[in-house]
Amino acid sequence: MRPSGRAHDALRPVFIQPGFARHAEGSALIRMGGTEVLCAASVEMRVPSFLRGKGRGWVTAEYGMLPRATHNRGAREAAKGKQGGRTQEIQRLIARSLRAVTDLNALGEISITVDCDVLNADGGTRCAAITGGWVALRLALEKLVRAGTLAVVPLKGQVAAVSCGLTQDGAVLDLDYAEDSTACTDSNFVLTPDGGIVEIQATAEQAPFTDSQFNTLMRLARTGTAELFRIQTAIIEEALKA
Amino acid sequence: MRPSGRAHDALRPVFIQPGFARHAEGSALIRMGGTEVLCAASVEMRVPSFLRGKGRGWVTAEYGMLPRATHNRGAREAAKGKQGGRTQEIQRLIARSLRAVTDLNALGEISITVDCDVLNADGGTRCAAITGGWVALRLALEKLVRAGTLAVVPLKGQVAAVSCGLTQDGAVLDLDYAEDSTACTDSNFVLTPDGGIVEIQATAEQAPFTDSQFNTLMRLARTGTAELFRIQTAIIEEALKA
Amino acid sequence: MRPSGRAHDALRPVFIQPGFARHAEGSALIRMGGTEVLCAASVEMRVPSFLRGKGRGWVTAEYGMLPRATHNRGAREAAKGKQGGRTQEIQRLIARSLRAVTDLNALGEISITVDCDVLNADGGTRCAAITGGWVALRLALEKLVRAGTLAVVPLKGQVAAVSCGLTQDGAVLDLDYAEDSTACTDSNFVLTPDGGIVEIQATAEQAPFTDSQFNTLMRLARTGTAELFRIQTAIIEEALKA
Amino acid sequence: MRPSGRAHDALRPVFIQPGFARHAEGSALIRMGGTEVLCAASVEMRVPSFLRGKGRGWVTAEYGMLPRATHNRGAREAAKGKQGGRTQEIQRLIARSLRAVTDLNALGEISITVDCDVLNADGGTRCAAITGGWVALRLALEKLVRAGTLAVVPLKGQVAAVSCGLTQDGAVLDLDYAEDSTACTDSNFVLTPDGGIVEIQATAEQAPFTDSQFNTLMRLARTGTAELFRIQTAIIEEALKA
Amino acid sequence: MRPSGRAHDALRPVFIQPGFARHAEGSALIRMGGTEVLCAASVEMRVPSFLRGKGRGWVTAEYGMLPRATHNRGAREAAKGKQGGRTQEIQRLIARSLRAVTDLNALGEISITVDCDVLNADGGTRCAAITGGWVALRLALEKLVRAGTLAVVPLKGQVAAVSCGLTQDGAVLDLDYAEDSTACTDSNFVLTPDGGIVEIQATAEQAPFTDSQFNTLMRLARTGTAELFRIQTAIIEEALKA
Amino acid sequence: MRPSGRAHDALRPVFIQPGFARHAEGSALIRMGGTEVLCAASVEMRVPSFLRGKGRGWVTAEYGMLPRATHNRGAREAAKGKQGGRTQEIQRLIARSLRAVTDLNALGEISITVDCDVLNADGGTRCAAITGGWVALRLALEKLVRAGTLAVVPLKGQVAAVSCGLTQDGAVLDLDYAEDSTACTDSNFVLTPDGGIVEIQATAEQAPFTDSQFNTLMRLARTGTAELFRIQTAIIEEALKA
Repeated sequence: MRPSGRAHDALRPVFIQPGFARHAEGSALIRMGGTEVLCAASVEMRVPSFLRGKGRGWVTAEYGMLPRATHNRGAREAAKGKQGGRTQEIQRLIARSLRAVTDLNALGEISITVDCDVLNADGGTRCAAITGGWVALRLALEKLVRAGTLAVVPLKGQVAAVSCGLTQDGAVLDLDYAEDSTACTDSNFVLTPDGGIVEIQATAEQAPFTDSQFNTLMRLARTGTAELFRIQTAIIEEALKA
Repeated sequence: MRPSGRAHDALRPVFIQPGFARHAEGSALIRMGGTEVLCAASVEMRVPSFLRGKGRGWVTAEYGMLPRATHNRGAREAAKGKQGGRTQEIQRLIARSLRAVTDLNALGEISITVDCDVLNADGGTRCAAITGGWVALRLALEKLVRAGTLAVVPLKGQVAAVSCGLTQDGAVLDLDYAEDSTACTDSNFVLTPDGGIVEIQATAEQAPFTDSQFNTLMRLARTGTAELFRIQTAIIEEALKA
Repeated sequence: MRPSGRAHDALRPVFIQPGFARHAEGSALIRMGGTEVLCAASVEMRVPSFLRGKGRGWVTAEYGMLPRATHNRGAREAAKGKQGGRTQEIQRLIARSLRAVTDLNALGEISITVDCDVLNADGGTRCAAITGGWVALRLALEKLVRAGTLAVVPLKGQVAAVSCGLTQDGAVLDLDYAEDSTACTDSNFVLTPDGGIVEIQATAEQAPFTDSQFNTLMRLARTGTAELFRIQTAIIEEALKA
Repeated sequence: MRPSGRAHDALRPVFIQPGFARHAEGSALIRMGGTEVLCAASVEMRVPSFLRGKGRGWVTAEYGMLPRATHNRGAREAAKGKQGGRTQEIQRLIARSLRAVTDLNALGEISITVDCDVLNADGGTRCAAITGGWVALRLALEKLVRAGTLAVVPLKGQVAAVSCGLTQDGAVLDLDYAEDSTACTDSNFVLTPDGGIVEIQATAEQAPFTDSQFNTLMRLARTGTAELFRIQTAIIEEALKA
Repeated sequence: MRPSGRAHDALRPVFIQPGFARHAEGSALIRMGGTEVLCAASVEMRVPSFLRGKGRGWVTAEYGMLPRATHNRGAREAAKGKQGGRTQEIQRLIARSLRAVTDLNALGEISITVDCDVLNADGGTRCAAITGGWVALRLALEKLVRAGTLAVVPLKGQVAAVSCGLTQDGAVLDLDYAEDSTACTDSNFVLTPDGGIVEIQATAEQAPFTDSQFNTLMRLARTGTAELFRIQTAIIEEALKA
Repeated sequence: MRPSGRAHDALRPVFIQPGFARHAEGSALIRMGGTEVLCAASVEMRVPSFLRGKGRGWVTAEYGMLPRATHNRGAREAAKGKQGGRTQEIQRLIARSLRAVTDLNALGEISITVDCDVLNADGGTRCAAITGGWVALRLALEKLVRAGTLAVVPLKGQVAAVSCGLTQDGAVLDLDYAEDSTACTDSNFVLTPDGGIVEIQATAEQAPFTDSQFNTLMRLARTGTAELFRIQTAIIEEALKA
């Protein structure tokens, strides 16, 4: 029995509110149970210097956590004067995941920065950031199409992410903080709807795990992301009608 | 005629949602028109070293703005590696304002940090942070009373803040961004319900202003904070019933 | 009776020595009692990037305090690796005050930086910096006129600042450290000779203060700055004769 | 045909020189083809504050790259004033990998820091650092046993790492820089000799990859680490004889 | 003929004003021609952690330059967020020089920090800082003796410093900026009255120099410091009478 | 008798391995007894902005020490976020020494950065860095000549450095750590083969030293560098044959 009473292959309730960041070209507030991440995509009509003049675009991401998003208040990174290793690792992952489904050539010399700020944390913030970040990115690209800047939305498809882990209750999908902090193995899967893998990160927190355990986690991830892709699609359809 | 169509002495619609930051001892999401600030009060059972052993408590504040809270994306302070002068100035103001109505002796050796993070910005963020920060502080102190840590809520009263300015439409209350960015004089008043003044900051952005103009701004501020005190009171009453 | 024996509306002895910083285009060492600030105005024939090509000039300021300007040695900001919030707040105030009386259009694409470094501190350093900074700025602008770079001195008038406060001796003018560190209310007024207000900062250090108390502080400030304007005028006249 | 002429499942020549860092309790210079990493394990008889008094030890790691380890000189991180995201990500991975095979309870209140500094880089530096870091750690622990500080070497087993990737030549083992910089998929596997998995990181650099491709990479990694475990064992046996 | 018209072995006019920093335990404003350095010695009744409990004292120094002490304004180190290499090199030299003549055992567990801040720069600032820093240190130690904290002044003697150089006018003593910026060889000598050498720094700015040229510089330095020792002695005698 | 058993005027065994840093245009691993420094010269076809368009080149240096190059592990400067004063002092010395023998006009608008990283430290690391750095620089310049970028090697000659000191065993050449940490006087001489002096740094660690003692140290330095020049010459001849 999981602490939340969920089945081993059940996601937490997922809710995505588009347009939360009023000034952003695209935005989404995503909730997965007690985890809440505000994703805002900002468009700039220029690219970093290493891409200038090559006709290609860029997608990057930044990640932050409000000091009291967590059980105990954490020090504000702006006050400490640097972003920690965990923050940098996560924002690099979000950026790679979003770039993997973007057609950067079709985007042209445009940069999009997706800010993912955690308002409330209860496990799985990086996965929620990727899933919600894709919605923000999609909406920003739609806006560029509607404005006539782009002819078509330069996306190769959807991307979503979910965590899986080995806990004392066995292999489970979408860990909350209570599970995450005691799991023996923690993994994050960034997947596409057509069976593609964008990124796998799997870590033994205590003893090493086996190939067979890994395959179980992988199957759970497919179950979870299938549901996330449906939710993303529904939100985008609804937002585009408005 | 103001850009928003408001009367010269009208506040924007104010909405305060208590409990938004689920882990914080007290929290409030405050909206004043298009400005939205998440205020979270965190309790620690110890004080900074300069107060240790003196039997007195401490209230401090931190302020931040999400990169895309504004019309154009601003650089993330955590990524730049330091908090700007404006940020520091504002968080010092919030902290002084909240301390001015707290009975630090009655609080005892407890620290409360009030984080004020701007999710959407449309002028007046520092004032919204003070008004909402007081609600978060009050709720955190109530929690300490209910837990038996404190006998009574160690507050000397309410505090709220509002901006006033001289624009081409004359003296107006509660400037939004369109007004703030073009005002000749910008001022912030931090007031108490019994006619007390906690802080005045008034700045000529272009030509110096006169005593008489200043007195007009001051009267507008009294009008505005009277309304804010009523809203604070109603929210606290409702939250305490729950 | 004030600790210094001064009348409640008496300034400390004021002394301004122009030309102390030999390389600066304009400079002034200002003493107000035990407070001593070296103000040096540096001219650059270019403007910050946000002003480039607009035909307007810029005036900015930096503030520092020597480590042993104070009763106890403070850590050197250069060694700590950042300027504190108080420093940034003060240098922003000095810059705004000087810009308020400068005709930036008449200045043209020239920048002037006024460095205000406190050699000895005994309260009121930010006010002394503004009053002395104006003298340094005026002398630097004169130099540009004499060199033929500018046709006239692009100043709209004088500006000076003074602190006032509510102490156990009542409302007093020009607080020294002994008064400043125990005052219930502390305020700084940046004024012009024709009755204009450039900036007001008034802060309740303990209990909130009243409108009537505020008006008393304001009147004291007018008395004090009237004397400071006379001293500025005399120094400039003398310096221009030399 | 791979650029180096190697078979798709062949490691580069591996050479490990123990004792290179003369002052370190344990050290190893590891070469994998053109990649050369100096690993040095330093023992301290105390633990970080979050572990104090719990009777458990700690293993951590730091990673660096000499400025001219690479084709083009990179800026020195000490001169830039911060460690980049890539550096932090790698040193966190090395540390997790070494902790996964250390019995921290048996270690007791002792910290071991494994510094991994890249002298020459030709792809696969993080994997070489883990494989060589384990040798340095093992030697440092042996030294503690010989000194009588520990009764037995508190290791649960060996750990080694290798990169695999999908290139235009198909799935290959142990990528050098020429392959790494053009691979479609890049992965790092941290494994144990008994079939355990400590960490998997697999990233699509261009198009997503499939489950089947992932399984091929995994099998190559098993081949590669089997050889690395043999080399580690031989080096340790030889070093202990000396 | 030197630019200043001085003889090759002539110092610039030297003037030392004790007590300039009113709060410091000892202080001296030293002028050597157009160079002006404020030296302030601060006493703390504790030592750095590496000396704690050893019964010995410590003398350290910090060096800074006001932004407009120089011909062109330099960036403020506090604003840049770090002390440059030159600053650190100089403050380490000042500290070593003062420690070389202090009896740290006789000082006991007391720290003295000597802040040397350049108000006006015209060459030779580090030498002026050492010569003036010794006066500040001596006065601070006298104060400790008068207060009964120390039985005797724990100094082994005097120390002073002077620059010498090879210019187009040959070997000269006490270079001003015009000479310093064009010299082929620049050297600083920190000497004691009894023929002792505390530190020599000699640098070929262009072509290497010879043993014989070096010996000439050394003799000039003896001439210069002899005069500086007389001035130090006279100032101390006068200050102690007051 | 010296701790190492060496004669007072004997260098430690010196060994220079060219080409250690495979990607660098020129490199040398230099060992002097237990001190080991990797010197790598990197060529860039542009100069810093202050030299742009003047037709002259630039040579600079950076210095670092691996955390466990020393008896006790030192904190990594990249992790601390800044280079210490000692590091900056040393890298400025190395750069000045190499520039003193380079014909910057003949080099043209090319920059060379010589990175000197200490792999193992046993005293004299800055001197080894200069001696080895010259070899790396020479090899990089040869490469530019062979590539036809330069017509001749733009060096005015050789440069090498050695430390000398006054220990309880008298004046000795090439101090190792055991001597260096207890010496009364420590000095570094940067010399040229034709009797030229590039830089002298001599410091009294305890009591001041005399002219006569200084002259003894100087003679020892000449003895030591004569041997270093022979070794440099032999290495270069051999490397050029290859």
